[in-house]
Amino acid sequence: MRIAHVAPVATTIPPPKSGSVETMTSLLTEGLVAGGHDVTLFATADSKTSARLAAIYSHGYWHDENMWPWELYEMLNLAAAVERAREFDIIHYEAAYYPMSLAFTRLSSTPIVQTLHHSPSRAEVALWARYPEAPFVAISEEQAALLSGANVVGTVLHGIDTDNFTFREQPDDYLLFLGRFTAGKGVLQAIEIAKRTDMKLILAAAEDDYYRAKVKPHVDGTQIIYFGEADFAAKVKLFGGARALVYPVQAREPFGLVLAEAMACGTPVAALDLGAVREVVDEGVTGMVFDSLDAMAAGLPNVFSLDRRRVRERAVVRFGVQRMVNEYTAVYERVIASRRG
Amino acid sequence: MRIAHVAPVATTIPPPKSGSVETMTSLLTEGLVAGGHDVTLFATADSKTSARLAAIYSHGYWHDENMWPWELYEMLNLAAAVERAREFDIIHYEAAYYPMSLAFTRLSSTPIVQTLHHSPSRAEVALWARYPEAPFVAISEEQAALLSGANVVGTVLHGIDTDNFTFREQPDDYLLFLGRFTAGKGVLQAIEIAKRTDMKLILAAAEDDYYRAKVKPHVDGTQIIYFGEADFAAKVKLFGGARALVYPVQAREPFGLVLAEAMACGTPVAALDLGAVREVVDEGVTGMVFDSLDAMAAGLPNVFSLDRRRVRERAVVRFGVQRMVNEYTAVYERVIASRRG
Repeated sequence: MRIAHVAPVATTIPPPKSGSVETMTSLLTEGLVAGGHDVTLFATADSKTSARLAAIYSHGYWHDENMWPWELYEMLNLAAAVERAREFDIIHYEAAYYPMSLAFTRLSSTPIVQTLHHSPSRAEVALWARYPEAPFVAISEEQAALLSGANVVGTVLHGIDTDNFTFREQPDDYLLFLGRFTAGKGVLQAIEIAKRTDMKLILAAAEDDYYRAKVKPHVDGTQIIYFGEADFAAKVKLFGGARALVYPVQAREPFGLVLAEAMACGTPVAALDLGAVREVVDEGVTGMVFDSLDAMAAGLPNVFSLDRRRVRERAVVRFGVQRMVNEYTAVYERVIASRRG
Repeated sequence: MRIAHVAPVATTIPPPKSGSVETMTSLLTEGLVAGGHDVTLFATADSKTSARLAAIYSHGYWHDENMWPWELYEMLNLAAAVERAREFDIIHYEAAYYPMSLAFTRLSSTPIVQTLHHSPSRAEVALWARYPEAPFVAISEEQAALLSGANVVGTVLHGIDTDNFTFREQPDDYLLFLGRFTAGKGVLQAIEIAKRTDMKLILAAAEDDYYRAKVKPHVDGTQIIYFGEADFAAKVKLFGGARALVYPVQAREPFGLVLAEAMACGTPVAALDLGAVREVVDEGVTGMVFDSLDAMAAGLPNVFSLDRRRVRERAVVRFGVQRMVNEYTAVYERVIASRRG
């Protein structure tokens, strides 16, 4: 298949540090190339890929305050692919934020499919209904349920590069919270769980106002420990050493990449039942999902007792790149067939 | 000519209160229809026009916080016109902010010309150079000079509906400052001019933080008078009663609509020489342009002595709608011929 994969142009593909969309775009691109497809990646010139790189910009707009308004940069990157539509069988648009692909839907001779990376509002979805034929890929059923009226041609959970997440059989004796310090991510609830269960808790995230105002007063350096922001290597070490990742999420999230990453290191997760959590966690295998903080505090020993080797194995099957590549290839084939039909 | 005129969809065309882009879009649309052209106006459904109205949205995003991100709304409005490209000889895109038209330039079978309503940064212009064929209309030579490398197919000064600006032969005895309260508009310099010349000054603009912090301390209600924000009728009265509009602008502006509006009421202007001022003011006829505040204070009596009837007459010729309509029609013809040629 001749695939135009249109990445966000905020930074490189893959990203220098973190960036779930950029990471997923890179993994999918490399997986498609490995699968024998003819892939052109529309991304910044400093990106690294085994696909053909089509670069309009030398670098991304996160690194250059002159590249503003950023929307225009994303738009012209997509336009560059659509202008070459005849060279491709499918155009896959990944840039986050909002579906610019709609504006090109009826102007492109090649179908454009867009993966949606955020939870859209009702008003957004109502607007998109102007293009009922435009194909979307959801990143979870949780997100797909929000897309009423849109043409959701598939739900594909993110893949991660499980080879890079080192398995560790014997953890140390702490709980881990890893994510951003926001009310929605439930860091205060994670602290409560640690205190109730008398466990050590390591917090790994970038310092911000929320941290200073709400989290720092709980950090004592012995039971509640602030690690700072973890780079990739540190993240893998923190996962591997944790008896469990605590994920007492307070907002409906369309996915939970950190859950899959922890699992890939063999670390089971203790999560609250909200958003896409049940789609990511295999109850009793890779973790446990609880209805309340009380239940989580009481059930934590059961999470610890899960077989870490099985956690890892299940994570590789469910979140390995190959599954994602296969599912996207099937999506492309469906979209192409549907356009022809 | 079959013209698609693509308006901003922030509010109605014409706008309920003020909005220079929306007003100009309306005047041009009506003028083109009056000139016998077949015009389709892409605007919100609550707009009023004698053209054919093509409305995707019931109302504009200024009036609905659910219509967000607004960029997507502008983009889909333009896309709606481009999808019907074959029905038009020319597509004229007016929405402010940034040139979304570029993204459609090579996807549209009909040429798209965009009027640029802001002063672009160098980085923006460098980006646009990716589409050297994309035709732009500048709103002044001052602005056109910033567009190096872009395909500027014409410079068309804004027109105003001079019929609505009532001429007044005998003014009252005050100076007028009308505009936003920003450092760039020079309200503090206007106050200085009033104090130095011992003239009464009326300030007409919406109250804001800058007003409260910087302007209000000077307002005494007798010499320096704050009127508030003027609606259209109040504006015309304020212009007509002023011996001169003071325009001690401190930032390079691509146009100065308030200058043309004052002139249309017969009111001469006293302006500093910056930005597009010399393109709008006919020195010694409709006003005087000064190099410094000192020169303005000294020269104000000469401004007062200008013949208000001649000011009005010149304004009608130079800023009447017909001139703008004629110039845009010529632009369209050039763009169409150039695409064919």
